[in-house]
Amino acid sequence: MAKVIKHRLTFQPSGRRGYIEEGKTLLEAAQELGEELESVCGGKLVCGKCAVKIGETSFADYGIESNKQPLSPPTEEEMESLLQRGLDDKYRLACGARLCGDVVVFVPEETRRAKQIIRKSTMERAIAVEPAIKRYYVELSPPTLDNPIADSELLIAGLEHSFGLKDLSIDYPVLKELSDCLRTSKWKVTVTVWMNREIIKVEPGYVDKSYGLAIDIGTTTVAGYLCDLETGKVLATEGIMNPQVAYGEDVMSRITYTMMNSDGLATLNTTIVEAINTLIVNLTGQVEIKLEDISEVTIVGNTTMHHILLNICPEYLAKIPFAPTINSSLDIKSRELGIGVSKSANVHILPVKAGFLGADTIGVLIAEEPYNQDEMMLIIDIGTNGELVLGSREKLVSASCAMGPAFEGAHIKFGMRAALGAIEHVAIDKKSLEVRFKVIGNEGWDIPPSPIKAVGICGSGIIDAVAEMVKASIIDRSGRFNTKIDSNRLVNTNGSPEFIIAWANETSLGQDITVSTGDVREVQLAKAAMYAGSRILMSKLGVTRLDKVVLAGAFGSYVSKENALAIGLFPKCELEKVYSVGNAAGDGARIALINIDKRQEAEDVVKKVEYVELSIEPNFQNLFIEALPFPID
Amino acid sequence: MAKVIKHRLTFQPSGRRGYIEEGKTLLEAAQELGEELESVCGGKLVCGKCAVKIGETSFADYGIESNKQPLSPPTEEEMESLLQRGLDDKYRLACGARLCGDVVVFVPEETRRAKQIIRKSTMERAIAVEPAIKRYYVELSPPTLDNPIADSELLIAGLEHSFGLKDLSIDYPVLKELSDCLRTSKWKVTVTVWMNREIIKVEPGYVDKSYGLAIDIGTTTVAGYLCDLETGKVLATEGIMNPQVAYGEDVMSRITYTMMNSDGLATLNTTIVEAINTLIVNLTGQVEIKLEDISEVTIVGNTTMHHILLNICPEYLAKIPFAPTINSSLDIKSRELGIGVSKSANVHILPVKAGFLGADTIGVLIAEEPYNQDEMMLIIDIGTNGELVLGSREKLVSASCAMGPAFEGAHIKFGMRAALGAIEHVAIDKKSLEVRFKVIGNEGWDIPPSPIKAVGICGSGIIDAVAEMVKASIIDRSGRFNTKIDSNRLVNTNGSPEFIIAWANETSLGQDITVSTGDVREVQLAKAAMYAGSRILMSKLGVTRLDKVVLAGAFGSYVSKENALAIGLFPKCELEKVYSVGNAAGDGARIALINIDKRQEAEDVVKKVEYVELSIEPNFQNLFIEALPFPID
Repeated sequence: MAKVIKHRLTFQPSGRRGYIEEGKTLLEAAQELGEELESVCGGKLVCGKCAVKIGETSFADYGIESNKQPLSPPTEEEMESLLQRGLDDKYRLACGARLCGDVVVFVPEETRRAKQIIRKSTMERAIAVEPAIKRYYVELSPPTLDNPIADSELLIAGLEHSFGLKDLSIDYPVLKELSDCLRTSKWKVTVTVWMNREIIKVEPGYVDKSYGLAIDIGTTTVAGYLCDLETGKVLATEGIMNPQVAYGEDVMSRITYTMMNSDGLATLNTTIVEAINTLIVNLTGQVEIKLEDISEVTIVGNTTMHHILLNICPEYLAKIPFAPTINSSLDIKSRELGIGVSKSANVHILPVKAGFLGADTIGVLIAEEPYNQDEMMLIIDIGTNGELVLGSREKLVSASCAMGPAFEGAHIKFGMRAALGAIEHVAIDKKSLEVRFKVIGNEGWDIPPSPIKAVGICGSGIIDAVAEMVKASIIDRSGRFNTKIDSNRLVNTNGSPEFIIAWANETSLGQDITVSTGDVREVQLAKAAMYAGSRILMSKLGVTRLDKVVLAGAFGSYVSKENALAIGLFPKCELEKVYSVGNAAGDGARIALINIDKRQEAEDVVKKVEYVELSIEPNFQNLFIEALPFPID
Repeated sequence: MAKVIKHRLTFQPSGRRGYIEEGKTLLEAAQELGEELESVCGGKLVCGKCAVKIGETSFADYGIESNKQPLSPPTEEEMESLLQRGLDDKYRLACGARLCGDVVVFVPEETRRAKQIIRKSTMERAIAVEPAIKRYYVELSPPTLDNPIADSELLIAGLEHSFGLKDLSIDYPVLKELSDCLRTSKWKVTVTVWMNREIIKVEPGYVDKSYGLAIDIGTTTVAGYLCDLETGKVLATEGIMNPQVAYGEDVMSRITYTMMNSDGLATLNTTIVEAINTLIVNLTGQVEIKLEDISEVTIVGNTTMHHILLNICPEYLAKIPFAPTINSSLDIKSRELGIGVSKSANVHILPVKAGFLGADTIGVLIAEEPYNQDEMMLIIDIGTNGELVLGSREKLVSASCAMGPAFEGAHIKFGMRAALGAIEHVAIDKKSLEVRFKVIGNEGWDIPPSPIKAVGICGSGIIDAVAEMVKASIIDRSGRFNTKIDSNRLVNTNGSPEFIIAWANETSLGQDITVSTGDVREVQLAKAAMYAGSRILMSKLGVTRLDKVVLAGAFGSYVSKENALAIGLFPKCELEKVYSVGNAAGDGARIALINIDKRQEAEDVVKKVEYVELSIEPNFQNLFIEALPFPID
């Protein structure tokens, strides 16, 4: 018996090492040592995904005479594949290079099976790229008269043989096209497999790309993120209005619409599905790919948006005890929902916690991971409803409070959405009571004549305005106007005092934009609800101070943290520990798209987080009334 | 600690026995002892399914004073439930009766979980009723503000709690109706679960019935069997023409149609789906149930019918090496196929073996079970193609031979299908050469004027005619006409001899119905193909004689076994060991509907049975030519 010669092989940067039999490829060696290398073609020198960097060797060193080189010389086929990928002679394909000496192999980031992507957030956090779908390239031997095996069995056997995939099924639409595809491609195909169990796409030849889509269905806007599922990178983003707005501005009015109209649910469902399909057309158009190229979709949204998308009657979400039809996540084929991507694509809908704590909040949670942190953290997602989550590694509690639409610009005399022409920031000089403001669409705090004139005040503007008015003693802590101040900006309309923020000539309305007594009251009601809800959650956990506050959502991105704290939108926290994280719900959808472990994390957090129904908390009303005054001296 | 008192309990007829703690219900005791009792409501005295018979006791014996009775006295609720089911005082509900003494309990057939049904076939065989769907009745506690659990989680938890069902999922369409259904039914529902893993129906209150449908898609006819999935009994059957006949009479011409017309496949698919839906309307109409009441469907058909139903291009079935797109069975939702039953119903399509050995033959195999028998058995299914399966417990081989359409009445001068007016049987007196015949639609062998006159000759008629002509020496063993016979029935048409079977006045054609030289040749070609195919299979297994021949299909039911043997349609076998089993393919579909183990048996037999491609068998042509003469002396 010939003696088995082994060589010492080390993979970097993982440091995995061991003695491997001479003649094995680096790809085989990697499997043996548990080093996870990319390989779509399974070792056929086709995909080039398994390229690795070799220490100090170069092609020139592989003299045929000398057998001292640690690796077999590359074949022409391998060299061509390396050249195609623009890799120099420091690189080898792991499936081509065979071991004949001790060697150290560097695995570049793109060759690692689980890649890391960085996203901006509270802190920079790396998410491994582990999507639900993987591609496999196979070359099959066609059936013969001696062995007239069925095409699907042939394909499944090939995938098992080359990649060890077991018990694969085939989604029905794939079956319809399979025989043609295998024959036109001369039995060389790239197969997309979902969750290592279902074949959802078969494409001729070697295909290099796969795409996924993350969607955040907000009551007002719908955001889409088209992602490269190889790298985890966002290729295109787009936000559009939710056209359901035509049937009601907030979730309650939409639920009412479905109850009052026999085809109301169908109408709202069709409306959102069509909007999503428009979004998909726009996104795929931006990067010039086909709709069918999208093979996986994730969706978040509040519970009402969630139910309407699923064509589930949302009526009971509005009735005590506000129980949803389903909590857990769902995997539904795109064709069942009418979403215009690959017919066999799975749509993963993140779980919801309660009637008023939806998949959007769950998205925020898997993006912010309070359950992995030691600090006591309050997460606030402000929209028409305010969602609150408080806790840390040990425990999480959540609540939803009806804040009214003040921060969305509704019920405010000159209120408007955060759109072109909205006053988004306000500063008032404490002495002169003169006002400066910033209008969306203008660069910086312009002094008129500016390119864009003011049209109204949006949520962040109204918070600024009220906070600055308190600081300048235009209103007192209880919210009452100080009618003794000496300013021509203080006016009286129908017996009620108002304060002018923008003069008529600074607006395109032709009239002064003011903050009214009613406006101040609306802000007080909203912020007191949020504050009282936060206090209830704090008492549930027995904590009296917050280590960190995270403001999620678009509103959270634009609001002045100082002024939010100043009016008492949430309990005290050090200013530098208040973070705006933007659309964290959308981030959550994107993260769940890219990494399937995060889907499980979402399921787990739904079970872990406790939901507190504020309406039955005995102390809520009391705390709410206590929170109505402004905390500023 | 109180001493635990136990009593001796025996179930009959199973004989299961053991000591059971006092106070347990007979249902609990049955679970403990592994006695499988029916129970839909899980012990709520609602369904009455768990009724059992008690030895010598009666209601009157349950005096409150005496506690010597072996069972607790029935409550009013239980007595009412027993009365509703027409059960006398010998019966108890196992979920109501609690043990307080030793007792023998008789479990009636209808209370046993796996019931036996008898079907007529080669031999009477019992099939246990074990369908893919089971019903469960649950009563749920509605969500509260303290515990606003989602409806689907509540339902799933209830089913796990009452019936131990784990990891249930919910089919998407069910989810849409769930919340309404739970509330209108006051949280008391009957749930239909598929394969113990998916909820496919939720109905208000206690529902007593579930229905299934078995379909056999033949090239010419489509047969449907509507079954009660509680008892396994057939409630209604119906056969309709396959309207695809308009696009081609045999599978090859239909395949050609799909290749020659860009929407050919779609047209044929729509045609068969619509036909199936018509069939379903007729069947449900017969027993006055709704389409949605059908919760499970099984389908068999030859491979071409199978592919067209699935909207899979059948082109490659007609091209070497005749490989199908898929072999294994499929479970597809009815809504994906457009089949008009319950939207969440599963359609189980039986597996196919090869391009010319379809799910219909697999259906025949699970009905006839040659793999469970010691005798060497040849199964013949004659249609446009002849399918052959030979073997026993040890090994099975199969083949398909292109017989031409002679036995379907095509390519025969006066040939026709087995329809009204067809001559289906013929007898010729050896001396007088006088002919008697039987026409479909007439009772017995009529002598004209009979109620229905002859229109043509169908397959069984042509076999009779040719066999009788050989026996009467009108034709010789080689198939040549003996022109020397003395009969006015022997005529010469265009230089070719013909033999008159029916005189013009016995027909509604106004002309003589004859058997021509060409007809005899067609019969010879067809029977020689079948015979040679059988011989090849016999040589594969190294056997020289058959223990048993089974003729499946409609043709097999009507053909004279004697004459089939006489012309040499299949190798020699004792006449009393030749059986006609009718539509065994349809039986197979029905059996797979009623018993899920038989589905696995179908998968197993597809793997076990070897397929022999006759066209590449070197000896086939030789055997074929040898088989052309008639075996009769």
